[in-house]
Amino acid sequence: MIALLTDFGTKDYFVAEMKAVILSINKDEVVVDITHEIPPQDIRSGAFVLWRAYKWFPRGTIFVAVVDPGVGTARAPILLRTRNYFFVGPDNGLLSLAAEEDGVEEAYRITAQLPSASSTFHGRDVFAYTAALLSKGVPPGYLGVRIADYVRLERPEAVKDGGVLRGQLIYIDRFGNVFTSIDEKLVKEIAEFGDRLCVKISGRVYEMRFLRSYGYSEVGEPILLINSEGFLEIAVNRGNAAEKLGLKVGEQVEVYKC
Amino acid sequence: MIALLTDFGTKDYFVAEMKAVILSINKDEVVVDITHEIPPQDIRSGAFVLWRAYKWFPRGTIFVAVVDPGVGTARAPILLRTRNYFFVGPDNGLLSLAAEEDGVEEAYRITAQLPSASSTFHGRDVFAYTAALLSKGVPPGYLGVRIADYVRLERPEAVKDGGVLRGQLIYIDRFGNVFTSIDEKLVKEIAEFGDRLCVKISGRVYEMRFLRSYGYSEVGEPILLINSEGFLEIAVNRGNAAEKLGLKVGEQVEVYKC
Amino acid sequence: MIALLTDFGTKDYFVAEMKAVILSINKDEVVVDITHEIPPQDIRSGAFVLWRAYKWFPRGTIFVAVVDPGVGTARAPILLRTRNYFFVGPDNGLLSLAAEEDGVEEAYRITAQLPSASSTFHGRDVFAYTAALLSKGVPPGYLGVRIADYVRLERPEAVKDGGVLRGQLIYIDRFGNVFTSIDEKLVKEIAEFGDRLCVKISGRVYEMRFLRSYGYSEVGEPILLINSEGFLEIAVNRGNAAEKLGLKVGEQVEVYKC
Repeated sequence: MIALLTDFGTKDYFVAEMKAVILSINKDEVVVDITHEIPPQDIRSGAFVLWRAYKWFPRGTIFVAVVDPGVGTARAPILLRTRNYFFVGPDNGLLSLAAEEDGVEEAYRITAQLPSASSTFHGRDVFAYTAALLSKGVPPGYLGVRIADYVRLERPEAVKDGGVLRGQLIYIDRFGNVFTSIDEKLVKEIAEFGDRLCVKISGRVYEMRFLRSYGYSEVGEPILLINSEGFLEIAVNRGNAAEKLGLKVGEQVEVYKC
Repeated sequence: MIALLTDFGTKDYFVAEMKAVILSINKDEVVVDITHEIPPQDIRSGAFVLWRAYKWFPRGTIFVAVVDPGVGTARAPILLRTRNYFFVGPDNGLLSLAAEEDGVEEAYRITAQLPSASSTFHGRDVFAYTAALLSKGVPPGYLGVRIADYVRLERPEAVKDGGVLRGQLIYIDRFGNVFTSIDEKLVKEIAEFGDRLCVKISGRVYEMRFLRSYGYSEVGEPILLINSEGFLEIAVNRGNAAEKLGLKVGEQVEVYKC
Repeated sequence: MIALLTDFGTKDYFVAEMKAVILSINKDEVVVDITHEIPPQDIRSGAFVLWRAYKWFPRGTIFVAVVDPGVGTARAPILLRTRNYFFVGPDNGLLSLAAEEDGVEEAYRITAQLPSASSTFHGRDVFAYTAALLSKGVPPGYLGVRIADYVRLERPEAVKDGGVLRGQLIYIDRFGNVFTSIDEKLVKEIAEFGDRLCVKISGRVYEMRFLRSYGYSEVGEPILLINSEGFLEIAVNRGNAAEKLGLKVGEQVEVYKC
C-alpha cells in the first residue's frame, strides 16, 4: 500500500500525475490519500498529520509525503526505512516525527528519478517513482545511497511544573478543535473528568470543564477533552473553538486547577 | 465494497485513519468516498446525500456514515441490515432515510470496538472497525445486539392541493441548484415541459419556465427542471440559483400554474 | 483503469454515483480521480488539466471528463479512441486538447445510456456507464456510431518574434503559480538560467530572474522558471504570484531580455 500526503490540493493535475506514475509501474498497488490539503509549504503541519496517521496503516505501507518549498535545490530527497514502514519525501523534517517514533533503521539519499525528471515536481518525478519501485520489491539500496543523518523537527513537548501543565497549541482541525501537546497521562495527574480547569493562553485565562466527550457539554461551551489521539484538546460543542477563542498554532498553553 | 460518508473534511487525518483501519483488517476491500464535505454536524444533509447515493452502489455494499455530534454520549452506534445493504453509523437519524427506503430487516446496537477505542472518534474506533469485520464475513450478531428500534428522520414530503404543489427546499448542491421535495410524478400532474410556472417561497413569487434541461434556457435565467434524482429543482443556467434568489434549505415552496 | 475529471466538486453525491455505476458493472476496475474541482462549467480549464495529466496514465486508460453546460441539449456525448487511450465526455472541446495530442483514431457519438437515464446527469447515466462497458471489453462500435468530426478547442500557442516571446497566461494552480503557453524550447532560444527577463502583461512590465527552481529565489520574489510540464511559469517563492501580481488566465504575455 502507498499512502500520500501533500500540500498540492486537489484542483490541479499534481496528485493525479503522482498516482498515474505509481499505477503505470505497479498497476495492482492500492493508493490511499491521507490528505492533500496541508497548508501550502507548511512543513510542520504536514509532519504533524503524518505523525498522527501513520501508525494506523498496515505494516509495510510506503508513505510518500511532499511539502517541499526547497524542491530543486540542494535539499536531498530521502527514503527512511523504519521498523514497520517506509517513508519517502524531502529531507526537511517532514518525515521525521512519524519516522522517529516508529524507529528509523536505515536512511537513504534517493538517486532514482524518472528519465524526464523536472526540477520543480519531485513529488511525481522522484518520490512517486521511488515509491512505485519500492512497492515492486526493488531494495532501497538500488534507489539511493545510505546516509548517516537527516533533518529532524523538534517533537512538540509538554511538562508538568508543580500543578501546572505547560505545552503548546499544535494543530487546529476542520472543526476548529485545538490540539495541544499535553498528553493524557499528564492531564490525569492533575485532573479528573468533570473538573473545572484554568487554561492560560497568551495572557488570557479561560475556565473550562474537562469532559469525556463533546456531547456532555452545553452547545457553544468551550471545554477540554482527551482527543482520539490521546492529547488534551480545546473544543466547543457544535462550534469552532479556534475561532471562538482566537487561538493559533504555536501559542503556549498552561493548564491548572483554578 | 465499503462506502464512506462523513463531515470530517479532507484536511485532517480522520478519513485516512478510518481507511487505514479498514485496510489493516481487510487489505483487499475497495473503499469508496461518497463525500467528506457534509457541513459539520449537519445530520439532515448527511442523511439526504446518503439517501440519494446509496441505491447506485452494488448489492452488499457496506455504508459507513458519520455525522455525529453526540459521539461519546449515550447515543448508540448502530448497524442496520437492509434488503440489499448494510448501514453503519450513529443512531441519530443519519442512516434512516436511505435504510428505510431500502427496507430495514434487522437493527443492531454495535458492541464491537477497537481495543484502544477513544470517546471522540467512533468513526475510526467503532464504525470503520465494525465495517471492516463485516466485510470479512463476521455476522452482525457477533458485532452487536439486536434492537427493536432506532432514530428516524422525517422524510421530506410534498403534496398536491388542487392545482398547487407544496413541498420544501431540501438541498443545495455545489452549483447552487436547489433540490425540492416535489417529485416528478406530482409535477407532471400540473405541468409539461415548456410551461411557465409560479414558484412561491417565503412570500416571494417567481415566474419560471419548466424545461427539460439547463441547456434550453437563457444564460442567467432561473428555471425549473426535473433533476437527475427525479425531483423538481430550481436552477440557473451557468449561474447559482440559491445565491441569485437567496434560497435556503428548509424553506417552504409552492408551485402552480401562473 | 478509469480516470475521472469533472467540475462536480466533492460535497454532493454526483461523483459517488458515477463511481457506483462503474463499480456496479465492473467491480474490479481501478477508478482514479484526476480532479473534481474544475471551476463550474469552465470547459477550457477542464481541457487544460486533462491535457496535462493524461499522458502519465497507463496505456489503455479510459478517461471520463465531464464539464458540461450543454447537458441535455443537442450537444453530442462522444467517445474518442486515440493511439493509447479512450476519452469519454461531452462534445464541447473538453476532450480535444488531450485526445488530439495523443492522436485520434476513431470518434463515436455515444448511444449507450442507463435504462433510467436523466436529462441532466450524463456524467452518471451516459459517460460513467459507457466507460464501465468499455472497461468490460465492449467494443466502441456497440456503444455509439462513428462520426466524422467533433468540437476542438484551439491549443494555446506561443511565438518568437525577433527577441520577443509572445504567448498567453493559460492556467493558475493552487499555489498561484501562473502557467504560460511559452514552452521550454522557445525560452531557451532567448535566455539561460540566471538571466533577468522582462515580462509584459496588460501594459505592465515586470523584471524577473529566470531560475532553475523556486528554491534559488528570495522569499517573496517573483521569478520565471520552467515548470514540471515544460512551460514557462511565473512564480513567487513561498507566495502566490497570481495574487501578488494580479494576473488572470487569458491575459497576453510578452517575455524578452530587458
